[in-house]
Amino acid sequence: MANSKFEYVRNFEQPDNLLPNTWIVVRIDGRGFTKFANKYAFEKPNDRRALDLMNAAAKAVMSELPEITIAYGISDEYSFVFHKSCVLFERRSSKLVTTIVSTFTSYYIYLWPTYFPETPLSPPLPSFDGRAVCYPSVQNLRDYMSWRQVDCHINNLYNTTFWALIQQGGMGNLDAEELLKGTYAADKNEILFSKFGINYNNEPEIYKKGSVVFRAYELVEPGTHNAAAEADGLAEPVQQSKNQTEIDKKRRAKARIVIEHLDIIKDEFWDRRPWLLSNKPGKIPKET
Amino acid sequence: MANSKFEYVRNFEQPDNLLPNTWIVVRIDGRGFTKFANKYAFEKPNDRRALDLMNAAAKAVMSELPEITIAYGISDEYSFVFHKSCVLFERRSSKLVTTIVSTFTSYYIYLWPTYFPETPLSPPLPSFDGRAVCYPSVQNLRDYMSWRQVDCHINNLYNTTFWALIQQGGMGNLDAEELLKGTYAADKNEILFSKFGINYNNEPEIYKKGSVVFRAYELVEPGTHNAAAEADGLAEPVQQSKNQTEIDKKRRAKARIVIEHLDIIKDEFWDRRPWLLSNKPGKIPKET
Amino acid sequence: MANSKFEYVRNFEQPDNLLPNTWIVVRIDGRGFTKFANKYAFEKPNDRRALDLMNAAAKAVMSELPEITIAYGISDEYSFVFHKSCVLFERRSSKLVTTIVSTFTSYYIYLWPTYFPETPLSPPLPSFDGRAVCYPSVQNLRDYMSWRQVDCHINNLYNTTFWALIQQGGMGNLDAEELLKGTYAADKNEILFSKFGINYNNEPEIYKKGSVVFRAYELVEPGTHNAAAEADGLAEPVQQSKNQTEIDKKRRAKARIVIEHLDIIKDEFWDRRPWLLSNKPGKIPKET
Amino acid sequence: MANSKFEYVRNFEQPDNLLPNTWIVVRIDGRGFTKFANKYAFEKPNDRRALDLMNAAAKAVMSELPEITIAYGISDEYSFVFHKSCVLFERRSSKLVTTIVSTFTSYYIYLWPTYFPETPLSPPLPSFDGRAVCYPSVQNLRDYMSWRQVDCHINNLYNTTFWALIQQGGMGNLDAEELLKGTYAADKNEILFSKFGINYNNEPEIYKKGSVVFRAYELVEPGTHNAAAEADGLAEPVQQSKNQTEIDKKRRAKARIVIEHLDIIKDEFWDRRPWLLSNKPGKIPKET
Repeated sequence: MANSKFEYVRNFEQPDNLLPNTWIVVRIDGRGFTKFANKYAFEKPNDRRALDLMNAAAKAVMSELPEITIAYGISDEYSFVFHKSCVLFERRSSKLVTTIVSTFTSYYIYLWPTYFPETPLSPPLPSFDGRAVCYPSVQNLRDYMSWRQVDCHINNLYNTTFWALIQQGGMGNLDAEELLKGTYAADKNEILFSKFGINYNNEPEIYKKGSVVFRAYELVEPGTHNAAAEADGLAEPVQQSKNQTEIDKKRRAKARIVIEHLDIIKDEFWDRRPWLLSNKPGKIPKET
Repeated sequence: MANSKFEYVRNFEQPDNLLPNTWIVVRIDGRGFTKFANKYAFEKPNDRRALDLMNAAAKAVMSELPEITIAYGISDEYSFVFHKSCVLFERRSSKLVTTIVSTFTSYYIYLWPTYFPETPLSPPLPSFDGRAVCYPSVQNLRDYMSWRQVDCHINNLYNTTFWALIQQGGMGNLDAEELLKGTYAADKNEILFSKFGINYNNEPEIYKKGSVVFRAYELVEPGTHNAAAEADGLAEPVQQSKNQTEIDKKRRAKARIVIEHLDIIKDEFWDRRPWLLSNKPGKIPKET
Repeated sequence: MANSKFEYVRNFEQPDNLLPNTWIVVRIDGRGFTKFANKYAFEKPNDRRALDLMNAAAKAVMSELPEITIAYGISDEYSFVFHKSCVLFERRSSKLVTTIVSTFTSYYIYLWPTYFPETPLSPPLPSFDGRAVCYPSVQNLRDYMSWRQVDCHINNLYNTTFWALIQQGGMGNLDAEELLKGTYAADKNEILFSKFGINYNNEPEIYKKGSVVFRAYELVEPGTHNAAAEADGLAEPVQQSKNQTEIDKKRRAKARIVIEHLDIIKDEFWDRRPWLLSNKPGKIPKET
Repeated sequence: MANSKFEYVRNFEQPDNLLPNTWIVVRIDGRGFTKFANKYAFEKPNDRRALDLMNAAAKAVMSELPEITIAYGISDEYSFVFHKSCVLFERRSSKLVTTIVSTFTSYYIYLWPTYFPETPLSPPLPSFDGRAVCYPSVQNLRDYMSWRQVDCHINNLYNTTFWALIQQGGMGNLDAEELLKGTYAADKNEILFSKFGINYNNEPEIYKKGSVVFRAYELVEPGTHNAAAEADGLAEPVQQSKNQTEIDKKRRAKARIVIEHLDIIKDEFWDRRPWLLSNKPGKIPKET
């Protein structure tokens, strides 16, 4: 029984390779996580265990896919960035997105008992959806990252105030919502401070800034590299010598993947870590 | 800190809605499963536990996504079919594919200990990639399904013979490969029978036919429905009364999802189960 | 000076092959034709010369591209249909659309003096834009054609009434617009008849029905062919013998391309011309 | 007769907006121009009238579409470049490509008698196909332009030698082809000079360099602008004041569109014309 008679169906598969020389961002989101968070009684406004689990899964994804340059997570979403020169899976969109979504899900389920030892999972299980988006310039990519971090800030300030009104102020959900309608950041800061003695600035960085995951090399002096202009000027994946590729690969494997809670909107973050935009591994820091 | 300054980055998201009125097949595949199978010492040529786990995960996916009409699995791959009238997630390709991949992965990891109680998972974890393909006509869809089932047959006959030569015949891998080069099905059947007393026809159906997963209603007499012509003639999602939609939904929820190992190439399978092509739930079989 | 250094830029070209086994409709539209019609003093509500020119250009397109099955034109737009089995230009969207747009434009300019001998063209010149859309089923295709013909009817009834009010009724544009706001077809028919003695049914067919262009073979008895079901059932381009392909090609070349003004919404048009859906040339009518 | 019943067919139209913030190149090509050139007895290796007609049509396209930044033509092909910030037609690919192809065709036919007064066109008429490609960085765009100009050079040197061997050397086509097989540029230069006394460097620039079409402003001193870095750094279409947009529009309208035959591979061309990459109109040169 030869298969040739049916094989024509392969012609219906349509290519989905992403435009070369653009930054690829794969963003994944928890499906129905409001309900899911209730089922497992996630703490409000932030559940530290849930965030740590997200971060651990993201870190595992970055270990398994060294082509990922940087990742950024807030709440139940995570964005993974491939360098514009990346040619993994010939830049096929489905392949990139599903590999990340599946690997992330895999670790999320696997690591769940580590972070929630007392509440084992039961069906329906958590899952994630995702999509890939291309950004042509460094500025576009940085604006994307800034967009997510501003969103983190806006949401966290709102949620912190909202849940303070409910948990400490004894308000009902609808009343709290009504009270916050139309307020500005300054208003919410004021409510937190005057009513509950909370200085928002002192809230944990992980809640205010979200989580940035990347390979850590030695920081450089700002102003010594211009990785952004270099990256923008790039025309195609650099043809390195095999030797150099091997050296880069080893360095990358050696580098620790860190999870930090930093400002990624200002230039400093990017200036001091030129490897993020240049895709050239930096110096491995000396152990201390 | 308003987010309006950065929000323009959303304009880079490109729509990926699949062509209406076409059958959507989402096929997922295990990533690096040859290595994975070795790590967990899967039995050759087929590991019944591994197939049962795949099937259990597929069944869970179909429970969570009632819009899936039928699924078909062999080895480490599974194909999920959405009816041509399906409008789930506005038919966005990424959303459909990632939801299936993630839900499948989720259950695969979660159910692993049920099927492999003695070999717990450890990183690197299993994961799956996937893609969506549109098929315009019933014939195209059925040819796709036939293509997968013929592949199942070809691979299984080859693997059964190959591993018999090694496990029972004491041959090395390369010698077995060499011996089978250029052989036809009849030759392999002959080797199995004359050398090892194996009648391939008596091999378990799950290995020879793969696994079909669908909602089971009462079988109909062949020739009484013409669901294929009806489906092909369909122009757009039928506007049902809200009432009818509710009735259909309840019936679907009541129907048992079954895993069978049948011939899906011949007409009979489809003729007796017109609901697969018509998308109209059949009669719930009486319990026995 | 070898060109290899720059040739990588070809990798940025992205494939745009249309889904196989679907009907391809290329619709083109005049750009800024309201202004253009004023410049050349087109008669209102319909300029027969302008329509004849559109039809002549469409006929020329069909002569140069025998793969086109049928075309339908109203006002300054034309739709060209490729059979679902068509593989011209590997079904590349850009190639199909631009070839039609360019050939149409070419003849439109070239034939202009034939239809407007007294008003030679001057820059800015007329031009057309276009797009390709895929329709999976015969019903979808016929609904597309019906959609355009209903549009023709609605627009023509409105325009006929509007311009009667102005040209014969001496009304201003805004007043005529106001008067027709919210009216139904019956109202417009009534206005035409009672105020101007015009029986809309007696208006020329070309204005009421638009223009259908196709290869004319002998009409068949309705009910003797089921080309629609046959076409829907089709899985892939039929592999004909070279001989049969040659015969078909010759027949097609022999067939006259006709421009008619018929109802293409009802079944009769399609039933009597099964070659339109089957893509098999019919019998060449005897000359009379 | 309302049209709502059929209007669902619009849902089959799929969006084709090109990725924002990338350079759009629309390249058009003559269809079957080898045959066409023979029909009208184009001179070999270059027909000056044919090139002048191509250039006149391209200039007309640029007049009608001020959003085009620069165009480059060789033989029967022309590339039109939209600035990366361009939002014309919401960057819909079909619309951009068909508008250019149609406008070009329109002028090609219309202007034919000006350039070929003694050989009127007759069917089958000339036509063009086209496609759009996105280039993310200035380097990609410039490499695209260089690719075309190198192609021009390679083809012209070959053709000049080939036709010299035939027209002046009395060789047959196949013999000339055979003789040139495997030769380098130096070899061809040598053949031209030693056999026919032709110094290739003295050939007309239009044949050696192709034709560049752009709006002419005052040239700037090289090194005073860095339009490339500025363009690459750009994140999105700059929000200009309405006033500034008006000023730019007027300046653009005032600028003469010139056709030149320059080296566009080296930096100088771009350095002295920063408006090409910045999209900001320069100073209108004083008339002399």
